[in-house]
Amino acid sequence: MNERREAPVRVALLGCGTVGSEVTRRLLGDADELAARIGAPVELAGIAVRRPDKHPELPQHLLTADAGELVESDVDVVIELIGGIEPVRGWLLTALRKGKSVVTGNKALLAEHGAELAAAAGESGADLYYEAAVAGAIPLLRPLRESLAGDRITRVMGIVNGTTNFILSAMDSTGASYAETLDEATRLGYAEADPSADVDGYDAASKAAILASLAFHTRVTASDVHREGITGISASDIVAAKRLNRTVKLLAICERVTAGEGADGTESVSARVHPVMIPRNHQLAGVGGAFNAVYVEAEAAGELMFYGQGAGGAPTASAVLGDFVAAARNRVAGGRGPRESAHAALPVRPMGQTPTRYHISLDVADKPGVLAQIAQVFAVHGVSIAAVRQRDKHSTASLVVVTHLAPDAALQATVSEISKLDVVREVVSVMRVEGEDS
Amino acid sequence: MNERREAPVRVALLGCGTVGSEVTRRLLGDADELAARIGAPVELAGIAVRRPDKHPELPQHLLTADAGELVESDVDVVIELIGGIEPVRGWLLTALRKGKSVVTGNKALLAEHGAELAAAAGESGADLYYEAAVAGAIPLLRPLRESLAGDRITRVMGIVNGTTNFILSAMDSTGASYAETLDEATRLGYAEADPSADVDGYDAASKAAILASLAFHTRVTASDVHREGITGISASDIVAAKRLNRTVKLLAICERVTAGEGADGTESVSARVHPVMIPRNHQLAGVGGAFNAVYVEAEAAGELMFYGQGAGGAPTASAVLGDFVAAARNRVAGGRGPRESAHAALPVRPMGQTPTRYHISLDVADKPGVLAQIAQVFAVHGVSIAAVRQRDKHSTASLVVVTHLAPDAALQATVSEISKLDVVREVVSVMRVEGEDS
Repeated sequence: MNERREAPVRVALLGCGTVGSEVTRRLLGDADELAARIGAPVELAGIAVRRPDKHPELPQHLLTADAGELVESDVDVVIELIGGIEPVRGWLLTALRKGKSVVTGNKALLAEHGAELAAAAGESGADLYYEAAVAGAIPLLRPLRESLAGDRITRVMGIVNGTTNFILSAMDSTGASYAETLDEATRLGYAEADPSADVDGYDAASKAAILASLAFHTRVTASDVHREGITGISASDIVAAKRLNRTVKLLAICERVTAGEGADGTESVSARVHPVMIPRNHQLAGVGGAFNAVYVEAEAAGELMFYGQGAGGAPTASAVLGDFVAAARNRVAGGRGPRESAHAALPVRPMGQTPTRYHISLDVADKPGVLAQIAQVFAVHGVSIAAVRQRDKHSTASLVVVTHLAPDAALQATVSEISKLDVVREVVSVMRVEGEDS
Repeated sequence: MNERREAPVRVALLGCGTVGSEVTRRLLGDADELAARIGAPVELAGIAVRRPDKHPELPQHLLTADAGELVESDVDVVIELIGGIEPVRGWLLTALRKGKSVVTGNKALLAEHGAELAAAAGESGADLYYEAAVAGAIPLLRPLRESLAGDRITRVMGIVNGTTNFILSAMDSTGASYAETLDEATRLGYAEADPSADVDGYDAASKAAILASLAFHTRVTASDVHREGITGISASDIVAAKRLNRTVKLLAICERVTAGEGADGTESVSARVHPVMIPRNHQLAGVGGAFNAVYVEAEAAGELMFYGQGAGGAPTASAVLGDFVAAARNRVAGGRGPRESAHAALPVRPMGQTPTRYHISLDVADKPGVLAQIAQVFAVHGVSIAAVRQRDKHSTASLVVVTHLAPDAALQATVSEISKLDVVREVVSVMRVEGEDS
């Protein structure tokens, strides 16, 4: 039942790096298969690259250095794989306003200007798809946006940055320091020369903003996301985690939070990226190297998990081409993909008010009354202690405290005050905890 | 940007058991939220149940015993949760031919008459969605059909039947027999009074047919699926698996098989359901109780995994309502979901030609030359042995053979011939193996 029409779907490709060249290869090489799935032939109308003379491997007649002109030409779909905010934002807005559908993996742009792009798409009736922006090959955004559209998502939590996951996995298995492991990751190509976007959590924060926006039908931008990277993680943090049969992961956590009871409760959402200690038998603990995995909890569906490759040319191209087929098919068959929906417009709860749990390792003076003094500080801040473990070593004792859920600000204040106590020699490690009963 | 229109989307519900009552509850209770996502209000036009007088909990004015009349009335979307082939097939064909979109979780009907339903939908332009038919709440069909539409899926393998997974998990942990465990599962409500659809693999085979059809763009029906249930699994099979650090799962396995080299290779597909021995550290081995998990391998995406609840009222309702929102939104915004595409029309390879690996446990006479005789039988059938393990016990020896990949028929013939050797006292266990390097 493939209704082929003669007019091809014309596609412009902006950017031709690792992902773009894989997309090009498949657009050209799998043309028949794609045409059968779309219902019309596909024509690659042009590829915009900064320096056409640097791409002898590509069909020369398709190359242009003028992305703006290509976008304005007679194309139906624009695939953008350049990245960054400007000048890409302008090109994509132009495309959408002229009714051309856009497929992009540009998480930074979406996390900052998603509303503007969605509005432009909404007005012209064009499609805006971006499965590749989060978790590479893993079909995650379409399930959130479509499969769970009749459910209420309460939580999205996962490993969405492969570089930091590679570094933390390696620190866990080798015991090496952060600096040594970063060097190794850079040497192996897992980290960029300037690793800040990854290790400082910017990349994961953009993804958290996109996930929270889709999951909660609420516009969340990157600046709404509380962000802590992994540069402060020490070998002793990893050791402290291991001692408790836990491991450290950088997680993106998006939650729907209800304060108060029942229908009177005020709902808000929270989105954060920070290192987290999780039990070693937690499913996310086993996600190693550059893989990504994301948990989704919804009222009716319960707990779901999605796992796969989060980056790389071919995996990311899979996501891009899935979106392209959807956008192209909509043009052939009529209709359009689901609109962005920010109708819930829930307030974003600041990190300080977000309930979290802490794991705190202290070196304290080995004398009576120390625990009482420390426990008193927790009590003053209204933080309830879940477990305490104490161990002597020479003239100091090691004390480990795990708390119950409390507002993050109360936990921060508790740690700050404890660190000033005379009986506390050193705050060895402070880390949030997830994945256990509170 | 919610363009509300006055005209509501009218929906008919056929069947109101566990899933249906959860769907009703959410259609009525979450009406505002659903309306915001759809862009129009939703009106539940009627609920067809066999005995309206048996449903005092439902709004009485909505109830009817005449499903056929309800389908023909002025409704936009029909949600079918009755199950079985007739008379449901006729009602859904009527609905689709009249341009009404259909959401169903009826795997038996889809696996047998999917082509007819898809053709009816294709002709009238109605949508046919059935996410709930496979793996309950897990968003799996939409990712296969849409997210991976630009990729080439090579393999889908997973646990898609909760009843058999519950029984096998329990046999593994308690060491009890199949019969005892089935009784317990029935008592706990995990197995039906007549468990045949589950334990004989019919349910999983229907799901395998649906998965293979979507994954390979090829019409695969339930009768194309090689099917073996779990009724033959003995406590000693489980012990044999444990001894090798493996466990037994009932898997649905759909594969794209290429015979010959490169572009000249002839492609076919294979779909099968049977018990499989997998390593205990395999991700599917950890999937316990009534949970489902499905691996998908695609050329570009690589390996993906989807995990979640495979059955139950609320989880299944999540999948049904996701489909309903999609169908309703298409009616409001114009357009339609992706068509079924069987354009690849690959031949289905019979089980005998499908490459598999066997694990064979034998009790053999404890004398010289036995292994040579047995190995000779493998050689005659062209089956290559990957590993042999031998162990004495009294006058017999226990011999375990794991093969490399070979056509299933050759493996069957090998086992049959070996069982007739004088030196073989008993074929203790024969099981296929997955999830290890071949």
